[in-house]
Amino acid sequence: MSTTFEQFKKYLQQIQRYNQIQTLLYWDMKGQMPKEGFAGHSDALTYFSTEQFKLSTSQELKDYLVKLSQPEEFEKLDADWKFIVKLMKREFDRDERIPQDFYSAYVQEQAESAKAWEEAKRASDFTIFAPHLKKMIEMTKQRCAYTDPDKEVYDALLNDFEEGMDSATIDRLFGELKAALVPLVQKILAAKQPDDSKFHAFYSADDQRKVQEYLLSYIGFDWNRGTVGESEHPFTLNFSSQDVRVTNHYYEDNALSAMFSAIHEGGHAIFEQNVNPKLDGTVAGSCRYMGIHESQSRFYENILARNKNFWEPIYGDIQKLLPALEEVSLEEFYHEINHVRNGMIRTESDEVTYCFHIIIRYELEKAIFRDGVDVEELPAMWNAKMQEYLNITPANDAEGILQDMHWSDGSFGYFPSYLLGSIYDGMYLQQLEKEMGPVDDVLREGRIKEITKWLNEKIHQYGSTRRPKEVIEAVCHTEPTAEPLIRYFTNKYTELYNL
Amino acid sequence: MSTTFEQFKKYLQQIQRYNQIQTLLYWDMKGQMPKEGFAGHSDALTYFSTEQFKLSTSQELKDYLVKLSQPEEFEKLDADWKFIVKLMKREFDRDERIPQDFYSAYVQEQAESAKAWEEAKRASDFTIFAPHLKKMIEMTKQRCAYTDPDKEVYDALLNDFEEGMDSATIDRLFGELKAALVPLVQKILAAKQPDDSKFHAFYSADDQRKVQEYLLSYIGFDWNRGTVGESEHPFTLNFSSQDVRVTNHYYEDNALSAMFSAIHEGGHAIFEQNVNPKLDGTVAGSCRYMGIHESQSRFYENILARNKNFWEPIYGDIQKLLPALEEVSLEEFYHEINHVRNGMIRTESDEVTYCFHIIIRYELEKAIFRDGVDVEELPAMWNAKMQEYLNITPANDAEGILQDMHWSDGSFGYFPSYLLGSIYDGMYLQQLEKEMGPVDDVLREGRIKEITKWLNEKIHQYGSTRRPKEVIEAVCHTEPTAEPLIRYFTNKYTELYNL
Repeated sequence: MSTTFEQFKKYLQQIQRYNQIQTLLYWDMKGQMPKEGFAGHSDALTYFSTEQFKLSTSQELKDYLVKLSQPEEFEKLDADWKFIVKLMKREFDRDERIPQDFYSAYVQEQAESAKAWEEAKRASDFTIFAPHLKKMIEMTKQRCAYTDPDKEVYDALLNDFEEGMDSATIDRLFGELKAALVPLVQKILAAKQPDDSKFHAFYSADDQRKVQEYLLSYIGFDWNRGTVGESEHPFTLNFSSQDVRVTNHYYEDNALSAMFSAIHEGGHAIFEQNVNPKLDGTVAGSCRYMGIHESQSRFYENILARNKNFWEPIYGDIQKLLPALEEVSLEEFYHEINHVRNGMIRTESDEVTYCFHIIIRYELEKAIFRDGVDVEELPAMWNAKMQEYLNITPANDAEGILQDMHWSDGSFGYFPSYLLGSIYDGMYLQQLEKEMGPVDDVLREGRIKEITKWLNEKIHQYGSTRRPKEVIEAVCHTEPTAEPLIRYFTNKYTELYNL
Repeated sequence: MSTTFEQFKKYLQQIQRYNQIQTLLYWDMKGQMPKEGFAGHSDALTYFSTEQFKLSTSQELKDYLVKLSQPEEFEKLDADWKFIVKLMKREFDRDERIPQDFYSAYVQEQAESAKAWEEAKRASDFTIFAPHLKKMIEMTKQRCAYTDPDKEVYDALLNDFEEGMDSATIDRLFGELKAALVPLVQKILAAKQPDDSKFHAFYSADDQRKVQEYLLSYIGFDWNRGTVGESEHPFTLNFSSQDVRVTNHYYEDNALSAMFSAIHEGGHAIFEQNVNPKLDGTVAGSCRYMGIHESQSRFYENILARNKNFWEPIYGDIQKLLPALEEVSLEEFYHEINHVRNGMIRTESDEVTYCFHIIIRYELEKAIFRDGVDVEELPAMWNAKMQEYLNITPANDAEGILQDMHWSDGSFGYFPSYLLGSIYDGMYLQQLEKEMGPVDDVLREGRIKEITKWLNEKIHQYGSTRRPKEVIEAVCHTEPTAEPLIRYFTNKYTELYNL
């Protein structure tokens, strides 16, 4: 192997250490750090992220990338390293086109806008956020003009979160979905709703921790390479494939929230634990595609864990761990975990109405970047669409357009990935049943780890070396389509709600 | 303020960040890190400690210290900064005299010796450890020849852990103590022992966590500037006075272990939380004197929490948190927490027999460094002394001389600090009663936070700026003496055991 390649690998290891330290500071800040530890930790975070930025934009790194991109060096690399060098070179070139002054101003506005959003949400007053949102939109357009001068802005943004995805494809996918779901949801909402009174009980945090441990083990989380923590909002992070962590939050009046969060984050974590360790510490060592990542968390959370058969072999154990569930039959439990409510809040919504929260964001993002709609018009548009799709109108902007923080730091184009994840899930399910027979049988027989193994082999091991459309093609041998998800929803909810 | 001083402070901040990262990696490794995360974390730890070593031994730092030590700069500093500059300069000069080659060999032998000790302890075979111990002793002598050419080796070692302390003083203190305790312990062991059968019960880890939280709050631990974690062995660490953490380990068949560990570590933590924040990030910002530090943890653990009056106001609450204690009267509880057992293991021993574990180590360390006793003779010496002082002989070296790891990495001279802490405690107690009246009354009236405040003012706020003998002089207006501790032991145990 060439000296340049060895030096390059050493250099990446160096960057990885600075990443690792930032990850650890973040983990600690969200978890165990006491309140007054904040100043020390944020000082360190700023310092080490600045050091990492220097390493990631240095002439030394550029030289490695240029050398390794030359044919005589490039051809010596294996397929994974070719992918890594190409990706890093492309991103380096792209980022280099952003003027330093603009970048600093952008980072500063991100922070200010995020702060304004927090204040606006607290006061439920969109006008506090509007000028910052306007500025973030302008700066985002400017950023795209630097980085992707030949692309339409919104397509460039979508590409940031789900490489290779574009609005033409999403228009088609979300369009199919919307056409089918609008009437389905209307029928569900008109039907008889399950009685949830038995679920209003006390569940101790400690019991819920035990349930989480049980569920994570059951779906295949590897405790030698992972652990759990607690934080205000659940999340997953990883240092490498050898150390992947999930957090949870326990509400003592609601056991379902932490159970499904555990399974959702567990899906993200199982992905990261099963990436080929050879890719550790590189840009391909973790899944960077939000739609693909979300497809794994949502596959476990929705496709598998909202299936009655998932619980069949384990419900007795869960009842022992959560005594308040002893009076709840499996049938009642199954109905409650699929209870469709047309709620205001995306993160609390069921798998069906969830789709509309994303579709509305997508339609608004297109209105912003393609139709040039004024920022001031957005709250009314949000509310009108909520009324149209879900028969409800937010009482205020805090439970309407202000509920999510994504736009405040300029993460436009992020939202669609959540729903792309579900669309992929319908496709995986169809393919899985072709290869393994009915998923109901696999689950009922307690063979869920065979599904995990299937996902490991088909998706996880590749990390980021396969792009979203390549993953779908390799697993399902077809273009993305919403049809399987629509069929899944229709069959499941027709039966559940006697439609 | 001079530019040099400002630059120096910035430089210290830099070093502090590298300290902080190592502390955080250590915290995570001992607590939440999964098994397979080890390689990544130790790689990072090695990297960042090397970077810190470079900063701490740089020409730049030396230049600052030399400049700031010149009278015209030095006189401009306030008393705390004078102390810091002087201490850093002295240590810098001292460390500079160690040849780089020797230092590397020493660090490597430390690691090998620590590994050999682990193996030896597991196999209960002193011969595995003996050659490494011999080498550590030789290298320690050599190190002292470089750093403290004018001092007797063992005095130099004692000075490393408790500055200003020497073996002449310790001979006197431990001598007084031994003379009084040998007959006292013999009488106690011959007396009727309390019945501990009611304590063999089940205490859930979660209940014990709640007790820990209760006790830490009760003694004055500040949760805004501290938190708790779990680890194999309890310890305390701090990032600064604003972020101080303790860990604990919960045995579900024994509630007392975690209760007293919580109070012990809480004592360390309350010290660190109350150091003047102005000293944060400097060599004086944390207590570096092991005897003084231990005097705080042991004051809370023994002098306060093994007093029946400590529990009087809170025992009812503790019983509610630990239902198994509901059948145990306060009187029975009090006898059990002061149950004297001549056990083999230092870390599990009661406050009286504990003294002998330290006295034996001290006598052996003197035999090594002063009398040149052969390493091979040490196990037999250990066993003979255990028999002489405590009427017991270890069945093997694992529960004898190999039980503690301190010697394996060359921490000779460390052990005496534990007992110095208790000796100081006797003195503090005497002084506290002079100033505040009988401690029994203060505790029974639930006014323990007044004691914490007293310790904050007299000891904690100064960090390391007062050396051990200066602390004792300032608080007790006298030289160190074992007499108050002897009186405390004699009165307490004469009553407890009807001697």
